Amino acid sequence: MSQGPPTTVLSADGLHGSLGDPLMEVMNFLNEVTSRHPDAISFGPGRPYEGFFETARIGHYLDVYQRYLSQELGRTPDEVRTMLFQYGRTNGQIHELVARALRNDEGIDADPDSLVVTVGCQEGMFIVLRALFRDPTDVLLVSSPCYVGITGAARLLDIETVHVPEGASGADLETLRRTVAELRAAGKRPRAFYVVPDFSNPTGSCLPLPARHRLLELAEQEDLLLLEDNPYGFFTRSGTGLPTLKALDGRRRVIYLGSFAKTCFPGARVGYVVADQGVRTADGSRRLLADELSKIKGMVTVNTPAIGQAVIGGMLIAHDFRLREANKPAADFYRENLAVLLDSLDRLLPPERRERAGIHWNAPEGGFFLTLTLPVPADNALLERSARDHGVIWTPMNHFYPDPDGGGRYQLRLSLSCLTPQQVAEGARRLAGLLGRSCL
Amino acid sequence: MSQGPPTTVLSADGLHGSLGDPLMEVMNFLNEVTSRHPDAISFGPGRPYEGFFETARIGHYLDVYQRYLSQELGRTPDEVRTMLFQYGRTNGQIHELVARALRNDEGIDADPDSLVVTVGCQEGMFIVLRALFRDPTDVLLVSSPCYVGITGAARLLDIETVHVPEGASGADLETLRRTVAELRAAGKRPRAFYVVPDFSNPTGSCLPLPARHRLLELAEQEDLLLLEDNPYGFFTRSGTGLPTLKALDGRRRVIYLGSFAKTCFPGARVGYVVADQGVRTADGSRRLLADELSKIKGMVTVNTPAIGQAVIGGMLIAHDFRLREANKPAADFYRENLAVLLDSLDRLLPPERRERAGIHWNAPEGGFFLTLTLPVPADNALLERSARDHGVIWTPMNHFYPDPDGGGRYQLRLSLSCLTPQQVAEGARRLAGLLGRSCL
Repeated sequence: MSQGPPTTVLSADGLHGSLGDPLMEVMNFLNEVTSRHPDAISFGPGRPYEGFFETARIGHYLDVYQRYLSQELGRTPDEVRTMLFQYGRTNGQIHELVARALRNDEGIDADPDSLVVTVGCQEGMFIVLRALFRDPTDVLLVSSPCYVGITGAARLLDIETVHVPEGASGADLETLRRTVAELRAAGKRPRAFYVVPDFSNPTGSCLPLPARHRLLELAEQEDLLLLEDNPYGFFTRSGTGLPTLKALDGRRRVIYLGSFAKTCFPGARVGYVVADQGVRTADGSRRLLADELSKIKGMVTVNTPAIGQAVIGGMLIAHDFRLREANKPAADFYRENLAVLLDSLDRLLPPERRERAGIHWNAPEGGFFLTLTLPVPADNALLERSARDHGVIWTPMNHFYPDPDGGGRYQLRLSLSCLTPQQVAEGARRLAGLLGRSCL
Repeated sequence: MSQGPPTTVLSADGLHGSLGDPLMEVMNFLNEVTSRHPDAISFGPGRPYEGFFETARIGHYLDVYQRYLSQELGRTPDEVRTMLFQYGRTNGQIHELVARALRNDEGIDADPDSLVVTVGCQEGMFIVLRALFRDPTDVLLVSSPCYVGITGAARLLDIETVHVPEGASGADLETLRRTVAELRAAGKRPRAFYVVPDFSNPTGSCLPLPARHRLLELAEQEDLLLLEDNPYGFFTRSGTGLPTLKALDGRRRVIYLGSFAKTCFPGARVGYVVADQGVRTADGSRRLLADELSKIKGMVTVNTPAIGQAVIGGMLIAHDFRLREANKPAADFYRENLAVLLDSLDRLLPPERRERAGIHWNAPEGGFFLTLTLPVPADNALLERSARDHGVIWTPMNHFYPDPDGGGRYQLRLSLSCLTPQQVAEGARRLAGLLGRSCL
């Protein structure tokens, strides 16, 4: 391509509207702050800790999966080759293995045919939204503040999103019910509610068991689907967690969005959807929602890469389809980080002092995140000062609200998942330094 | 989940409209015919031949890539681990390697930052469409008949697609120009033209060099972007191909959709987009279209799986960034298949006999596909009879037209890519048997 003639320049306002939405730039902003302050301790990213990853194991898991194909399933070497190298089944090739793990780990008894193996949970969200949302009257409800992956996916598809403010214990069901009624009255179709019941991103909240039952009833009464996203459920403080919505879902109201990013590793980009709802066509035939999702997935990524599936399949086999058990060391690690963070904050900002200043935080029962509330705006300007003068990075909670001025102005998210306990302690010290300057 | 209470059944007409479009089921139909006739010789799928795949090489390519990271780029073992296991750069980690191969193989000199490494070419098409198409006035033009991957992706995004009938030598530029003018007059914005200049799927047509230059001029004059898809360019009959549109693109009118599915292997699901156009925002800042695509990709799949990228990266390195050369044995193989098919058809249906019957076919200069025209409808009923009574499968051309009755009724596509020369010869014999029964 020559340097000579003028080259094509597109006008940003001729591109899809999502590209002008600040929502789509949240990640870039954080990465940019991080890259300018490489020595800062970052409570920013929700990535898993890397200390448990072993490069040499990739080959081992690939071998385990191939042995399974040949010895357990009786596939010939040529068939194994086809499964690894060729285009494959749209809804995945490790669906039966995933179903076995789901039964052991979550007590979810899913027909393997109701599973769609996706390119990470993100693709799962995306294809589920595409399938369920027909036209501009359809509305997605989300617990707010909310993971940007779901609101971003909705934005790409021009799906209207309505935020239901979270209470101290996760989704606020009375507000949800009222919002559904208001939307119906306005001629809208409230189609689905996206929720992370266990240790939500960004707040760390957890929906109590009675509320889970009530949410399932509400979904049934209001003809709402529940999109349950559960990346953090294994990482509890007590060691035992609550049953997922899907495990309690007698009526198949729940579309379960599964992820291996935190329980195996993110680089595989393997997630899955349990879509066991029926779909009735005009001619009276019945099929699984998973079969409909397959048509959409085929036009987004064709199929989930075989090699990533093979590695995750090998991990599932190697851990005897019990990822919860395999993740015990990781759960212990995150539990210690959470304890160190809570203890450090408590010691550095003792109750009387922080109450006087109007600083407080929640104490999640697990997961990767914690919410800290300040008496001053926890905005990008404070973040910049925090990174530059105190060497500590975090995420303004504001980024998880739809409208940049819509909420969370005085809150920030602390993520503890990719630091060592020593870094968590040092990070808490630096954070206390910032707060001492800014709030006390 | 209990068997007791009634479970959720969704109404198909409450789902997104794409799911009711026959376009989305084409692949299922073909797979279903194939599975009912496992002994038939199939000229159906456009998959690459598997004889060149070697399972044991996966580990080797992974090693090569890791050695490159540590020895060439000086990455520490921890950094290598992060690159393989963790979330990664949205636009990919092998973009520089891909850019080197593009320079050697295609004479395309792309800034690595203008590349987006995607989950196969399909995701590339999808995110490009999402970025470029703003609202319902925007129209995608496609050369028709057309690969269903692009029309399917457009359907998911409710993008209007207008088909420009192909001539004997690919895209018909006069019709294209007229269609653009008509759309403009109707208040539409003809935004982009999707084209496979080299050995198109499904017809096998190839756009001559002068037409390539004229198409680039037309795009410039009409402010049209060209979406060039090039999966088959290496597989020529003569050994040398024509320059791609992108290689001739002095004005950056071409968004290049690259695939490794046929030149490396499909299971990796690694493709890429060259999006080197500028984007000017309201505040006067400038960025690359690739940066905008990144925002969209982040909400579809987060990033392309690292392990697939590592394997493809290893292959690029191992072949000294010259995939065209590495694909010589494959090109020879497909060339022989094409020769066998053309020779067999010519022998089995000699000129006088076929002319009398109104049977003819094209003789593509390369690629995976050939178009056969019959005097009778090449429809699903004939396909069923072909599979059952003659043991040979092919694809009704009709499937590649937007409206099932819109064209190609008397044509079929023969794909020669995943058969051996012996199977091609036997398949041609069976096909001649069918034609003898049905047309002669």
